[in-house]
Amino acid sequence: MRISELSRASGVPIPTIKFYLRERLLPAGRRVATNQAEYDQDHVRRLRLIRALAEVGGLPLATVRRVLGAVDDPSLPMHEALGIARRALAPEPAEQHDPAVAEARAEVDRFLEDLAWEVSPDAPGRDELAVALATLRRVGWPDADTRLFTHYARTADRLAAREVQRTTPAGATRAETMERVVIGTVVFDGVILALRRLAQEHHSAARLGEPKGRSRTARARPNPPSATVPISGNTGGPH
Amino acid sequence: MRISELSRASGVPIPTIKFYLRERLLPAGRRVATNQAEYDQDHVRRLRLIRALAEVGGLPLATVRRVLGAVDDPSLPMHEALGIARRALAPEPAEQHDPAVAEARAEVDRFLEDLAWEVSPDAPGRDELAVALATLRRVGWPDADTRLFTHYARTADRLAAREVQRTTPAGATRAETMERVVIGTVVFDGVILALRRLAQEHHSAARLGEPKGRSRTARARPNPPSATVPISGNTGGPH
Repeated sequence: MRISELSRASGVPIPTIKFYLRERLLPAGRRVATNQAEYDQDHVRRLRLIRALAEVGGLPLATVRRVLGAVDDPSLPMHEALGIARRALAPEPAEQHDPAVAEARAEVDRFLEDLAWEVSPDAPGRDELAVALATLRRVGWPDADTRLFTHYARTADRLAAREVQRTTPAGATRAETMERVVIGTVVFDGVILALRRLAQEHHSAARLGEPKGRSRTARARPNPPSATVPISGNTGGPH
Repeated sequence: MRISELSRASGVPIPTIKFYLRERLLPAGRRVATNQAEYDQDHVRRLRLIRALAEVGGLPLATVRRVLGAVDDPSLPMHEALGIARRALAPEPAEQHDPAVAEARAEVDRFLEDLAWEVSPDAPGRDELAVALATLRRVGWPDADTRLFTHYARTADRLAAREVQRTTPAGATRAETMERVVIGTVVFDGVILALRRLAQEHHSAARLGEPKGRSRTARARPNPPSATVPISGNTGGPH
């Protein structure tokens, strides 16, 4: 196909395709005339993957190049190529050198070991959980330890089992699998958080809202007496 | 208590407390001498809430003030005060005027109506879901409609039911409830996403990884023949 057809098939504008060609992210087409090249389905697939990484994942070009290199490296198992992408997509963790985070990190490592999850020692999620735990402690969240994560871990485990099965179908190429995993990770991050907040609003309405909640007078008291159950006396948090 | 004790009890440094006093986010203490004021548990609680909103939630001061105003307004049901905080904590949605997003938004509204979730018409989660759906369509995700969200909605529903119950214990003050909800929402956003990625890595290892996966040769093929199942032929996505 010509570059115009490639653009239509991939949804990527021609100037962007030319840019990717110049940057060697997209392999050159087969030259059929001085001024014309022929492209095929591999180019369509590669463009979709680049778009997933750069546009949906928001990755900088250098990182896109690194992930593409991993996809193309026949000696690298797909699982490891996906690991490189997942690492690139993770948020930059802060407070790395805080001793409270370092302490929390050791607890997170034990927690993941107890779950028997097979995750690499430098998976960014470990630090993210450590920062979360340290934050909960800093703000005095009751019973702030990794047990708060247990219920969420169970939920994430069920979700991920299903997702991995669906985003890595047998027979898909490495590029296709990578594309699905990247888009699936990034877009469904947002979906999960949006649905969680909507569901919280719904359950909050049911528990505290006008029609079914407690009486308006009770709810509307701005500052109930101090002698209510102190916050540190509650045995929970959303775990 | 003196301001130094208030600082210890709340974990907020004295200069920050003085700043909040000047900004009238924190009510003045009871003056006991020309140069000395006395603070109580209400001040501790208010400081914890300010910290939750400003530090953990990352909200700008004007928004912190608005949420505090809602907490203090006796005529405003707690459910609505929480709604104001949830809205402030939501990410800024992009692509608002994209017709593809507008179309997706109508589908999201129908989806939430079918779920019978009680959520306000301007809840930011609606737009976030619409942007996600439009993105999936733009990149050619197979069968991109709201049915992709069904499984996630069920998961979010179970999670939120539990969270709302635990973050709004009976007897807690409005300030305490608000603090728990804000911290719970923000910190556990990160916990959920981190655990999901770790669990994906774990399941990905089990499915594609070295010891239990398919043979290395099969996995390592960089570009299996094009005649494999085309990506649009898969009936799924992680729904």
